[in-house]
Amino acid sequence: MLVFDAICALATPPGVAGLAIVRLSGNGAFDIADKCFRGKHPLSEAKSHTILFGTFVYGDSHNGETPIDQVTAFIYKAPHSYTGEDTVEFGCHGGTIVYQEILEALIAAGARPAAPGEFTKRAFLNQKIDLTQAEAVGDLIHAVSQQGSHAAARQLMGGFTRRLAELREKLLELCGLLELELDFSQEDIELIDKGVLAERIEETRGFCLELAQSFKSAEIARTGYSVGIVGYPNAGKSSLLNALLDRKRAIVSATPGTTRDYIEEMLHLDGAAVRLIDTAGFRESDDTIEVEGIELAVELLRQCHLILVLNDISEGKNHSAPLLASLRAQFGDADVELVQTKIDTVSTVEASNDGLLQLSSQTGAGIRELKQFLATKAASASGAMQDTLINARQAALLTQAAESLAKAREAALAGESNEFTAIDLRTALKNIGEITGAVWNDDILNAVFGKFCIGK
Amino acid sequence: MLVFDAICALATPPGVAGLAIVRLSGNGAFDIADKCFRGKHPLSEAKSHTILFGTFVYGDSHNGETPIDQVTAFIYKAPHSYTGEDTVEFGCHGGTIVYQEILEALIAAGARPAAPGEFTKRAFLNQKIDLTQAEAVGDLIHAVSQQGSHAAARQLMGGFTRRLAELREKLLELCGLLELELDFSQEDIELIDKGVLAERIEETRGFCLELAQSFKSAEIARTGYSVGIVGYPNAGKSSLLNALLDRKRAIVSATPGTTRDYIEEMLHLDGAAVRLIDTAGFRESDDTIEVEGIELAVELLRQCHLILVLNDISEGKNHSAPLLASLRAQFGDADVELVQTKIDTVSTVEASNDGLLQLSSQTGAGIRELKQFLATKAASASGAMQDTLINARQAALLTQAAESLAKAREAALAGESNEFTAIDLRTALKNIGEITGAVWNDDILNAVFGKFCIGK
Repeated sequence: MLVFDAICALATPPGVAGLAIVRLSGNGAFDIADKCFRGKHPLSEAKSHTILFGTFVYGDSHNGETPIDQVTAFIYKAPHSYTGEDTVEFGCHGGTIVYQEILEALIAAGARPAAPGEFTKRAFLNQKIDLTQAEAVGDLIHAVSQQGSHAAARQLMGGFTRRLAELREKLLELCGLLELELDFSQEDIELIDKGVLAERIEETRGFCLELAQSFKSAEIARTGYSVGIVGYPNAGKSSLLNALLDRKRAIVSATPGTTRDYIEEMLHLDGAAVRLIDTAGFRESDDTIEVEGIELAVELLRQCHLILVLNDISEGKNHSAPLLASLRAQFGDADVELVQTKIDTVSTVEASNDGLLQLSSQTGAGIRELKQFLATKAASASGAMQDTLINARQAALLTQAAESLAKAREAALAGESNEFTAIDLRTALKNIGEITGAVWNDDILNAVFGKFCIGK
Repeated sequence: MLVFDAICALATPPGVAGLAIVRLSGNGAFDIADKCFRGKHPLSEAKSHTILFGTFVYGDSHNGETPIDQVTAFIYKAPHSYTGEDTVEFGCHGGTIVYQEILEALIAAGARPAAPGEFTKRAFLNQKIDLTQAEAVGDLIHAVSQQGSHAAARQLMGGFTRRLAELREKLLELCGLLELELDFSQEDIELIDKGVLAERIEETRGFCLELAQSFKSAEIARTGYSVGIVGYPNAGKSSLLNALLDRKRAIVSATPGTTRDYIEEMLHLDGAAVRLIDTAGFRESDDTIEVEGIELAVELLRQCHLILVLNDISEGKNHSAPLLASLRAQFGDADVELVQTKIDTVSTVEASNDGLLQLSSQTGAGIRELKQFLATKAASASGAMQDTLINARQAALLTQAAESLAKAREAALAGESNEFTAIDLRTALKNIGEITGAVWNDDILNAVFGKFCIGK
């Protein structure tokens, strides 16, 4: 275990509650803690994984001690802690003054305030977790959907680590064979057939690519499936948002253009998070579409996976055809779907059999069907990840690995010297090593832990 | 120990952070927890005050289990827990989805969501703490000043409990003597001289009154010493606020009337919390004072302990005399002090020797002196409470007790039968018993715990 200086931070969210936890970890943690803790026994004499009750005090025996709070002290002895170091966690009452004073007292006693992500960084450096697990901690904390949260939990438990370890082993085996052949190159022994080699490399390349491509769906699991709700003024955008959320979030009025800014709300459907974005209305003028607050709306719609174009059926089924065509042309990456609204205002349901979405926010007709539609779309878009939640950093490294493997395969098929193939395989191995942190440097660590919050 | 059904709640503040704690307490807590916890050993077999590491799962062995998070389980066996009941606290990653799913799983496993203050209420019912300690928990969590937080910590540690116990003992002793005399009333034995009796009662009455009167200073320690900053438009109110806070909080402009609403900021001075309130400017018209946004300003100033009337010295030392007089007349309960501002704009300091506060927010002159002035005022107003932080409920009961004791004393001095004196003493004892909860009913408990938040 590496031993670093003692750091401390509030580990629970700031704010008022029954309980708060202040974490202290590193060299001399127990001695520092004992300067502030008055219980039956000193914390340094306690066993690991035990809980002690006592009083947290500020000051010293010379100048008098002020009791700050009655606390529980959770003892973790190295290496059996989150960071791998000696750690004390203080459970105190969740008052702002209380935990601030506890932190001040620990700092006066010799600890220093922790940097963002520093506890988890130490866990990595002490090989308690790899980088994919450290990144899973971040994903777990920031998850907006059950699906994303579950995938992060599996990744934290080493799901991704295991898959990458298998990949690494396969590549190492191939490298080993090639390098052994090089050792016997005088004798011209072929330990692996070049065709088989190329096939095995292609297998791992495919696996890397598949993982890299799951980045898009992971992003959806991470931040939600974004659905833009657009339409001409008064098409019923805000009413639909309220009907979907089952409460009054948007101000609904009969005056066109009521929604000045934009409204974003999270809808949870079968474990998936659907991010509903109600943009400002689009204005029609001489067959051209003029976008109100155009920059914001375009920026928002560009992030959407699905765009629902609301058409007020009382104005005619094809009233919004120009808008639909324009959006399909402009936002080709997204699904753009037409939704007939206000179907309660027309006597016969005119569009009953052509498969279009149709609803009335007023009567609730069609809302359940739309939710089902959204749930299916979101589930299929966020994919069937089981134990990985690929992020941009990992995707980039996987793509680089796939490129090196493609080169290695070409070299093998072209019958080039094993040397060249081995170099490309080693490059791919380095890329994969950077994903888990088997290969790391300060830049990599800063990229991963710099995004963390303090106390993590 | 009383045993109640198992309840669960998030004990840490909602929000995103490294860690969150979900508390589960009550009958069958370990069995419920074991349905969701997968570790080396079941939690029900663990020793009290130990920490176990494992996986929190949702679902069951038939339909499959989904891992929610890797957690630490903190074990507290009855009666050695906060509530006095079997308790498990789960330390999980501080993601909203994570703790919500943990709560859902615990509820599916047989627990129910805790009501506000229910954990602390159980601690009271199981005689782990008395009502003054329960109230101290609330004060500790909501404390805005070190002074208030420290007083609450001492009260939590039983400071007030001990003082009330002494009081109770003294009264019980007097009651005992009086009632013993009654038993021997035929023989006309006097166990205590009526003068001595009256004196002892007066002592306890004085103690009750003194405590009751500390309510005002306790309120200041609890919510801060409120200082209103007023003055004619452009007197330098916002500039002073920024100079005191040492940052740009209020928008400062040379246009009179910039501060539309009001600004409230907490300034921490030597452990005391000073609540600075910058109200809208007062407008002068024909020697009468017209208050802009009068209702809000009057309401705010009524809550102030100190009102600083800022006078722009460049307009003349006595320019604000009408405003000062008017405020002194209207807010007689508060200190109203004149402060000369913008002293950098006059060549000689005209008001150097008359003890007035004078400063320049521009140069910083006089700011340190004003802070010292505020700190002294706040410290003297919040009093020298050591181990009590009397609240309205306690103050009312202490006042009632003092009234009963006054009657008892009168009865004793008038030479009335011991019976009457004893009845009044018993009433006082009941009042004091209600403070600690030695005497309680549902109304009392609801009054105390209804104000608590969930998870406490």
